[in-house]
Amino acid sequence: MNDRLDPALALPDLAAIRAAHLRVRPHVHRTPVFACAAIDAEVGAKLWFKAESLQKIGAFKARGASNAVFSLSADAAKRGVVTHSSGNHGAAIAYAAGRRGIPAWVVMPEGSAKVKQANVGRLGATIRFSGMDAASRARICAEVERETGATLIHPFDNADVIAGQGTATLELLEDVPDLDVVIAPVGGGGLISGTSIAAKGVKPSVRVFGAEPANAGDATLSFASGKVEPLPSGVAPTIADGLRTPLAPRTLAAIRANVDAVESCSEEAIVRAMRMIWERAKLVVEPSAAVPLACLLERRFDVEGKRVGIIVSGGNVDLDRLPWQSGNP
Amino acid sequence: MNDRLDPALALPDLAAIRAAHLRVRPHVHRTPVFACAAIDAEVGAKLWFKAESLQKIGAFKARGASNAVFSLSADAAKRGVVTHSSGNHGAAIAYAAGRRGIPAWVVMPEGSAKVKQANVGRLGATIRFSGMDAASRARICAEVERETGATLIHPFDNADVIAGQGTATLELLEDVPDLDVVIAPVGGGGLISGTSIAAKGVKPSVRVFGAEPANAGDATLSFASGKVEPLPSGVAPTIADGLRTPLAPRTLAAIRANVDAVESCSEEAIVRAMRMIWERAKLVVEPSAAVPLACLLERRFDVEGKRVGIIVSGGNVDLDRLPWQSGNP
Repeated sequence: MNDRLDPALALPDLAAIRAAHLRVRPHVHRTPVFACAAIDAEVGAKLWFKAESLQKIGAFKARGASNAVFSLSADAAKRGVVTHSSGNHGAAIAYAAGRRGIPAWVVMPEGSAKVKQANVGRLGATIRFSGMDAASRARICAEVERETGATLIHPFDNADVIAGQGTATLELLEDVPDLDVVIAPVGGGGLISGTSIAAKGVKPSVRVFGAEPANAGDATLSFASGKVEPLPSGVAPTIADGLRTPLAPRTLAAIRANVDAVESCSEEAIVRAMRMIWERAKLVVEPSAAVPLACLLERRFDVEGKRVGIIVSGGNVDLDRLPWQSGNP
Repeated sequence: MNDRLDPALALPDLAAIRAAHLRVRPHVHRTPVFACAAIDAEVGAKLWFKAESLQKIGAFKARGASNAVFSLSADAAKRGVVTHSSGNHGAAIAYAAGRRGIPAWVVMPEGSAKVKQANVGRLGATIRFSGMDAASRARICAEVERETGATLIHPFDNADVIAGQGTATLELLEDVPDLDVVIAPVGGGGLISGTSIAAKGVKPSVRVFGAEPANAGDATLSFASGKVEPLPSGVAPTIADGLRTPLAPRTLAAIRANVDAVESCSEEAIVRAMRMIWERAKLVVEPSAAVPLACLLERRFDVEGKRVGIIVSGGNVDLDRLPWQSGNP
């Protein structure tokens, strides 16, 4: 860790990501990497898909959560952990806390989908309801921290979480050492931060790209301006619901230091890319996981003839509401 | 091969399946094997899924077709191969012939789905249309054989095809040697024949089960009666369209010699099992591939507490017509 910096900006270095890998290995899958000639032909590059959709809880978030939970001192761990996320990070915290045998509280808005509540509950966490807005979520989290002494584990603005997310890229570069490019989706920036630090650390010549939906195109703007920009207003929310989050100063710092380009894609391309991965690679992936391929289909990155690794972030999707079904967005 | 037998009943032995494995390895994927605790909990056993859905052309059929095509003499190969199958075997023959650089003809009924025609065409095979009935298909196949000298490669009534299908089980037992049970779906019987010969050859103590839809429950009857029984009439065609085929005398002989039980399941269980594999294991699988799990969900085999390997046969499915969508069967 760069302890000399402001702790609010601290980031893991390669050594921290390697340590995270040793720490999380007993608790997460070493996910397989797939090639698919039919998709290669569509984009004019050779692609390798690191299938974190096949990870514990169905997303890479199991890595960061496990690293954060297993990095806690015995004393802190005893008091448990708390987070606010009704999505994959909430499930990941519940999973990791269960592995360590400590309590977990997950704060989610009242009216969250029953399936998400059931997921977190099945993993043994306690749900606390908040209002819909960020302030209400933060207030309930702070209440839990005060009442229980639990440690807050933020979904991405946390150096241990970022180190854990970087472990997928260590494995990818072990399996396919001669990659020219690595691409990951960008939401709050935890995954791309860990990915880029790991990739540049292991192989300085590799290019790292961040991919996001144009309808949540804040990271493209933030990368250019150097300050955290808000989500665009006046556009429909992207179907890649895992990416509807602005960066934190910490993740922006990692991206500015290590990422070569951030680009965005249309909603149509996300649906097309998602369907292509289902049909051709036979993997169930969520819309967010298809965003890097969507950017390639729209030729947003120059990868002609290159060897490209893609972090396929997760596979948690409602099979009753697929985006290519009529009546769905 | 048991050359002493009637060639119409000849079956590969373990040595032939091992030879097939060496022959096809450059042309097919060594597919991964997945465990899924959530599904284990539903069936009360420890399951391993051999994901042939991730195989070349999206199905195990690439193995049998590759073995048959690469077993041909140079002279026979030059004249090409022909088969009748608009499904996975047709695509597999087109694929294998392309790998060997020889012509392939695939006979399919006029009015076959355009996507199936496109698949076979993209793989470089020539399509010849027939009528819907078996007699018409056989006649067109015979015409192609006469005109071109091509070798007919039957989808399952062929010892080389059966040997190739058995190679998936060699890999499964290498990866998970301590299995108690192996289960495969049963259509024409090529897969279960190769699976059972390989499994009993490698590990005589393993139990091998065949699984089929009740709405195509001919193998259960044939297994009991000892003669090839027709598909049941007066029931709706099963959604597991890959399994709507009676056995051949050759595959029935293999099943009677090596399989411990054949059982069948309801259409509802197939849909439930298919959806469970998509949601929990994050794999796109076709209805036929879900039939073994469907039989376990309906407790048709006694596997309580056992270690069970399942051949997940394929992942070719129309994403616009999923069986849990309203309006579909």
